[in-house]
Formats: sequence, structure tokens, C-alpha cells
Amino acid sequence: MKKLHITGLGLLGGSFALAARQKFHELEISGWDTSEQNLKDAHTLGMIDKAQELPDEDVDLAIIATPADTLASLVSATLDKVGPESLVIDLGSTKSTICKALADHPKRKQFLAGHPIAGTEYSGPRAAFPELLDRKVMILCEMEKTDLHLKEKAYELFDALNLKLRFMEPDEHDKQLAFVSHLSHISSFMLGKTVLQKMEDDKNIFDMAGSGFASTVRLAKSSPSMWAPIFTENKDNILEALDGYIENLQKFRLKIDATSGEDMKSEMAEINSIRDILDLQS
Amino acid sequence: MKKLHITGLGLLGGSFALAARQKFHELEISGWDTSEQNLKDAHTLGMIDKAQELPDEDVDLAIIATPADTLASLVSATLDKVGPESLVIDLGSTKSTICKALADHPKRKQFLAGHPIAGTEYSGPRAAFPELLDRKVMILCEMEKTDLHLKEKAYELFDALNLKLRFMEPDEHDKQLAFVSHLSHISSFMLGKTVLQKMEDDKNIFDMAGSGFASTVRLAKSSPSMWAPIFTENKDNILEALDGYIENLQKFRLKIDATSGEDMKSEMAEINSIRDILDLQS
Repeated sequence: MKKLHITGLGLLGGSFALAARQKFHELEISGWDTSEQNLKDAHTLGMIDKAQELPDEDVDLAIIATPADTLASLVSATLDKVGPESLVIDLGSTKSTICKALADHPKRKQFLAGHPIAGTEYSGPRAAFPELLDRKVMILCEMEKTDLHLKEKAYELFDALNLKLRFMEPDEHDKQLAFVSHLSHISSFMLGKTVLQKMEDDKNIFDMAGSGFASTVRLAKSSPSMWAPIFTENKDNILEALDGYIENLQKFRLKIDATSGEDMKSEMAEINSIRDILDLQS
Repeated sequence: MKKLHITGLGLLGGSFALAARQKFHELEISGWDTSEQNLKDAHTLGMIDKAQELPDEDVDLAIIATPADTLASLVSATLDKVGPESLVIDLGSTKSTICKALADHPKRKQFLAGHPIAGTEYSGPRAAFPELLDRKVMILCEMEKTDLHLKEKAYELFDALNLKLRFMEPDEHDKQLAFVSHLSHISSFMLGKTVLQKMEDDKNIFDMAGSGFASTVRLAKSSPSMWAPIFTENKDNILEALDGYIENLQKFRLKIDATSGEDMKSEMAEINSIRDILDLQS
């Protein structure tokens, strides 16, 4: 791999650039970001060698790492620009919309739909670090629609970055992610909001917050420009997850109100089984 | 300080024992736990020198670190046993009930109501570690009701353990903790439940979970025996916090359903202000 282009030099795009740089010493990286400050930072941090909106025609890989609502047009414009030996990859957190939008593109074979399960609550190039992707899961969708030979170029990068590949259909991806990622962000944002509202009465309320609160509210620091489009694109699945969550909260509320200590205990003990599942992963 | 007694040798009691042991080399520690296994583990881990249900009469400090619903009777029994030079401290996560229960005890002056803002999602002596309390906040309630000379003994321990003391009334404590601790546990348990329910359809759903999910659901590993009594004792404040939370979720749900991207963005951007507050603390 000789030439890499990255559109969107934030946490994810920037981390790909830094990690690729470490693994491929001769690599030439071009990149773009609509934020001038991000573009400047990306230069300073050594992420890109040159700033340009679209990749060179002979680019090996072009990675599009921008908010979900901008992906379809950017992937399309990038495909239009590149030559036959280039692969364009998106890293969006929803996969149905982008796959549908690209279905009839004449260069569909040169597109790969991906989603690395990696991130922090911070955003922008200064939040990026090369280890972000190390040993993380990379989901790939509609694999059969991408050219076999071009996929090898993607594998070369993914393997070098220690990404663990998983393959699933876009619909299945969006359903699962609504539950194990998108819902967590909503619960965290609303928890943050509830405590901020309370702070209007109790100025010092945060002094009493411990590590448990910090952990559950961490995602409320996340970028609104990134998350609002995800909530929109994956609306149906997210509403299903959110309705289930609200119903569970309301049922548990009844148990608290009824002072049903034993009921609460047995419900929580069942949920404790999540320990084994989470521990398996780490 | 020569003699310390700890009732309840779990995460918190055990960590107090281990930390006190490091700071006071001549200290004799007695202790008790209703779980035989915990008592055995506490011996093995060097937390206690001898197992006994109640402290010696000449104990300096007796710390009661058991679930909230057992505190009043244990503190009372311990006060009845000890001599005039002993101080009894509870570490419960709710403070109104215990303070009311002890209000008319003839030895009220020998009792100190405390709550260290420290913990993890794990429980039992094997989860304890001496650094758990280091530089954590220790809330003390109804300070004026405790004997001045006996309080000095508590300060000696708290200072040695680098605890940062805060003083508040029990009602205020319980109100604030409902928002910044108890609500987080409920949100986390119910998030865990929602995803476990979904797992019945999608066996592999947890494979797709990233660090964001792990962070928001971490507290769902917590001990039901510890948390059910807290939800009961602090019911009114928790219901207020939970109702505010559910209302916020329902309102945000409407924005998702209406595809109100800009509305969602501006709401999340406001909540992002929690960044500065959380960063101040760490």
C-alpha cells in the first residue's frame, strides 16, 4: 500500500492515519476535513502529508470517516474520482442507509461498508491516538458486493492494525448496534441532563459524584454532530430499543414505589448475569 | 489508635481494613461477616487478626460496613457493647434512616454517620484493595451530635487514608446521592436488562458491544443485596430522580421520532457542558 486518503480527520479518521503511518513507513497520506482547524491540527500531528478534498486517482484506499448524514454523497464523489485500482471504505455507525444509497453506483464494486467498534467520548484530531483501533472489532457489510482483489488492500490495512473482522448484513448490524451502542449514548445523555437540571437547585451536586456516575455519564460528552444523524438514520431500531428501556425503567419504578425489596433483588440478580458476558469480552 | 473493629468485610469494610493495616503497624483488627466464606477470606487476605461478632469494649473505632437495611440494629448493638472511649461509624449509602434510628440512643454521642464516595461494581473481601479510599470524598452527617474527643479518633484514621472530608445534613445527602449515584445504578441495571432481553433473539449481540456500552452497563454487575435496601430507604428521592430521567428519555424519544436532527443536536450540545464539570473533578 502506497497511497491512503482520509476524509474526516477526527477521532476515528485521525487514529487510522496515525496507526497506518506506524505500520507502513513509505505511506503517503492525503486527507481532508471541512473544519480548517481540524485540517491544521492533522498537519501538525503528522496525520497527513497533504491536504486535498478528494484523493488522487491512483490512491490505494480512501477512507471516509465523517458523520453518518454526509457519508453517501462523500463516498459517491470519491468513487467518481478514483481509478479502477482504488477502494473506498466508509466507517459509519449505521450501515443500511449507506449500503442502500450506494447500491446502484456504477463503481459499487470499489466500495466497502465498514464500522470499527472503537471510539471514546472525545472528538477531533487531537483526540486521536494510534492504539484506538488495536484489537477492536471491524464489522464489514455486503462483502459479496466488493471486488475480491480490492478487498485484499483493505485486509492488508486491517490486519496491520490488528482489527478483528466480523461480517454481517446491514440490517442486522443496525438492529444490534441500536441496543449495544446507540441506546447507551441516549441513556448517558439523558442521565447527564437529569443531573444538570438538578444542579439548578443544588450547585454542589457534582462534588458527591463518584466513579459510578462518571462511568454511566461518560458518553454524554460525545459529539452531537456525530450522534444526531445516527439517531435519525437508525430511528426505527433505536425507538424499539428505547421503548424497551423505558418500559423496564417504569416497571422497576413500580417495584421501588411498592418497596418490593425481594422483587428488586431477584431482578437485579438476573441482570448480574451480564457480568459473565462482559468478562468474556475483556 | 490501637484497636479497630470492622463489621461487614466486603469491598468497603475490607478496603478500610487493608488500608488501615498499611498505615497503623501496631493495629489490632477484629471483624465479622455473616458470610462464613467472607470471614475465611478476610483472614486469608490479612484483613483481620481475630473474628468476633462484636468489638472488644476498649476498641477505638468500630466500623459498620453492611447493607443499609442492617445498619441501624448493628450500630445499636455495637454501641451497647463498647465502652466510653469507643466510636462507632457506619458507612451506609443513605443517611436519613440511620440518623433517625440512632437519634435517641443513649450513646448517640459515640456514633458518627459517614459515607465514603468510593466503590466498584464488585463486592466481597476479594474485591477489596487498600487504594480504594485514597483521595476519595468522605461525607459526614450530623457532626454536632458526635463527641468532639471521639471524632478525633475518626479523623486520625480518615487523614491517614487520605479521605477528603465533607459535611452535610442527612436529608441533603440523600437527595444528592439519589441523582449522582442511585439513579446511575438503576439506569445501568435497566440498560443491562434491555440488552439481555434482546439477546434472546440475537445470541451474538454482545460481540458488537464496545467500550461505551461496557461503561454505561458496568454498574449492572453491582450487588443486589446492597442496592435493593438503598432503593427502599431512599425511595422518595430516587423516585423523583427516576421520574425526571424517564421524562427526559420520553421527550428525547419524541425528537428522534420526529427526525428533529437540529433539536437533538442543540439538546446534546447543552448536555455536553457536563464535560467541564466532570473534568474539574478528575
